[in-house]
Amino acid sequence: MPHLLVKSGGLASMPEWKAAFAEAAPELNVAHWDDAVPVEDVRYVMVWDPEPGRLATLPGLHVVFSSAAGVDNITRDPDWPRHLPLVRMGGDNTAQRMGEYIAWACLSLLRGGRRIALSQAASRWENFENPFSAAERRVGIMGLGNLGTRAAEMLQGLGFAVSGWSRTRKSLPGVASFAGDAELDAFLAQTDILVCLLPSTPETAGLISAPLLRKLPAGAGLVNAGRGSHASLPDIIAALDSGHLCGAVLDVFEPEPLAADSPAWTHPKIIVTPHLASLAPRRERARYVVDAIRAYEMGAPLPNLYDPDKGY
Amino acid sequence: MPHLLVKSGGLASMPEWKAAFAEAAPELNVAHWDDAVPVEDVRYVMVWDPEPGRLATLPGLHVVFSSAAGVDNITRDPDWPRHLPLVRMGGDNTAQRMGEYIAWACLSLLRGGRRIALSQAASRWENFENPFSAAERRVGIMGLGNLGTRAAEMLQGLGFAVSGWSRTRKSLPGVASFAGDAELDAFLAQTDILVCLLPSTPETAGLISAPLLRKLPAGAGLVNAGRGSHASLPDIIAALDSGHLCGAVLDVFEPEPLAADSPAWTHPKIIVTPHLASLAPRRERARYVVDAIRAYEMGAPLPNLYDPDKGY
Ligand SMILES: NC(=O)c1ccc[n+]([C@@H]2O[C@H](COP(=O)([O-])OP(=O)(O)OC[C@H]3O[C@@H](n4cnc5c(N)ncnc54)[C@H](OP(=O)(O)O)[C@@H]3O)[C@@H](O)[C@H]2O)c1
Ligand SMILES: NC(=O)c1ccc[n+]([C@@H]2O[C@H](COP(=O)([O-])OP(=O)(O)OC[C@H]3O[C@@H](n4cnc5c(N)ncnc54)[C@H](OP(=O)(O)O)[C@@H]3O)[C@@H](O)[C@H]2O)c1
Repeated sequence: MPHLLVKSGGLASMPEWKAAFAEAAPELNVAHWDDAVPVEDVRYVMVWDPEPGRLATLPGLHVVFSSAAGVDNITRDPDWPRHLPLVRMGGDNTAQRMGEYIAWACLSLLRGGRRIALSQAASRWENFENPFSAAERRVGIMGLGNLGTRAAEMLQGLGFAVSGWSRTRKSLPGVASFAGDAELDAFLAQTDILVCLLPSTPETAGLISAPLLRKLPAGAGLVNAGRGSHASLPDIIAALDSGHLCGAVLDVFEPEPLAADSPAWTHPKIIVTPHLASLAPRRERARYVVDAIRAYEMGAPLPNLYDPDKGY
Repeated sequence: MPHLLVKSGGLASMPEWKAAFAEAAPELNVAHWDDAVPVEDVRYVMVWDPEPGRLATLPGLHVVFSSAAGVDNITRDPDWPRHLPLVRMGGDNTAQRMGEYIAWACLSLLRGGRRIALSQAASRWENFENPFSAAERRVGIMGLGNLGTRAAEMLQGLGFAVSGWSRTRKSLPGVASFAGDAELDAFLAQTDILVCLLPSTPETAGLISAPLLRKLPAGAGLVNAGRGSHASLPDIIAALDSGHLCGAVLDVFEPEPLAADSPAWTHPKIIVTPHLASLAPRRERARYVVDAIRAYEMGAPLPNLYDPDKGY
């Protein structure tokens, strides 16, 4: 019976993880990361943020599963076992949920979602016109991978014009593709709502700061559902306060949880969401890991692998 | 030079209306409803809520334009000139904007938009999973007219399963069609998120009350962007408090503006929006009226006419 150690969501979430794995694979032996399991018995782990050095102590480990699509909290460990496959959380459901979040965020920017919430909080009936319909706004997605691709489709269905920026050029129906650093400025110049769905790598760290924001058209909106490390919150706030940005929807922060005294919470042009953009129920994530383990045990390829050469 | 009288948005909005009409049709003579214009000179009116009896005093009137898609505030006048064409605000833009609102509202119900707003108001980082993705929720639209049809398309693009209920049967790709009172219960039984886009008529008044809500599956959501008269707010609140409904997004109320002490403002499961679901900028609405006037002056048919036999 292979052993799976879990570290995701804290001890409090273990009963739910255990129930989810028991339902999907009764034969799997599931324990918490800190349970007393002999190190040689651990064949799989599913983790979000393992403490550095710990993965290297598991001699029988075959596969590392990330409980999220981003793996930066695993690969920042200088000693993580690079020779092992690292599987990122994925599947249609993760992409669908992220697409829903991005659609909601872009519509919230388009239709004054933050203003609506503030008016409701004040019991104030404040009718207003929105200057644009979706057909008049161009969404630019940074990162056209698993998640960005589905988001692009959903945004097009709403009437937005959509373009994307990635390392390599894409050919998605109706989506203008910009590739590499050389085309970043051209991409930004034609983007009314900038959506970040990049992985966290040395190349993408700190990208969303004042110099980049200046290259967006005046009145642009911003959605960050990549990582907090992609963005400078003070620079975003300065651009909102100067009127250069019209609004921002932020799901990720550095550090998390966002401090209770962060100015983001109360800013009249920022919607804060607590890193839930693509969060699928544990039941579904357990099912995804079990399907991958079964494939692996039968010698089939693992899905959605981290590529150490690319760094994501 | 034909005269157009305007009554929509109050005196304060007249400068904007005048500028919008001057841009679209410099030859048109535009005055406010209460300006001293000889009654026989008034060939057109564009109104939202004319005081009863007043339209009947305009002997030279040719066409009544409603500044909104709903015309109930005009047809409630016992003396409104039934023999004249009544044009409802419309066009692709109105439908597109309503579709955006409905998509935003359904995504807000799916993804906990109200919970997110309340957490932000309390500076509280409260991560939560959403039980369903759009693919697992069935949206049922009451009213598959100009607005409901576009909303159905946009919701399908997001991954929702969509059905509709109308007087006559429809054949829209992928949208299950329920027709007439006889099929209402079957429609409701398969609806996880109920969207109201009906016109206000004697048949539809008060439809969304306890007996109807009971016929929805437990945990259903509600979006009302039709008219406040379609719904009983106390019945909606009771269904939310019992847990039978999971949430509601309400754009229309009876009366409007919603009273500052209405329990809707503070209810933890209600999103209140101030009747802005499909509000297009005045510039666009003026353009729509001008296009219709020009068609009419050349003997071409008027768009989007009220049908006195149907009552909408
Ligand atoms: N907020 C949340 O809840 C949440 C949830 C899940 C994921 N995420 C974030 O979303 C990210 C993307 O996930 P995914 O599954 O879509 O990843 P993916 O399939 O690996 O796609 C990553 C995309 O980013 C592009 N990219 C990477 N580095 C780049 C660079 N230096 N310049 C330009 N483009 C670059 C890639 O270009 P190529 O296609 O050319 O390789 C690819 O299109 C995750 O890494 C994570 O940070 C956030
Ligand atoms: N909240 C806002 O900002 C806002 C803005 C614009 C409009 N609205 C509301 O939205 C309504 C719809 O606008 P629209 O342009 O889409 O109107 P429309 O094109 O006339 O469509 C009305 C739809 O309702 C159906 N219907 C009417 N009476 C019915 C009944 N008794 N039983 C079942 N179905 C019935 C019609 O069925 P058939 O197709 O069989 O005739 C039609 O599908 C307006 O009347 C207004 O109340 C609200």
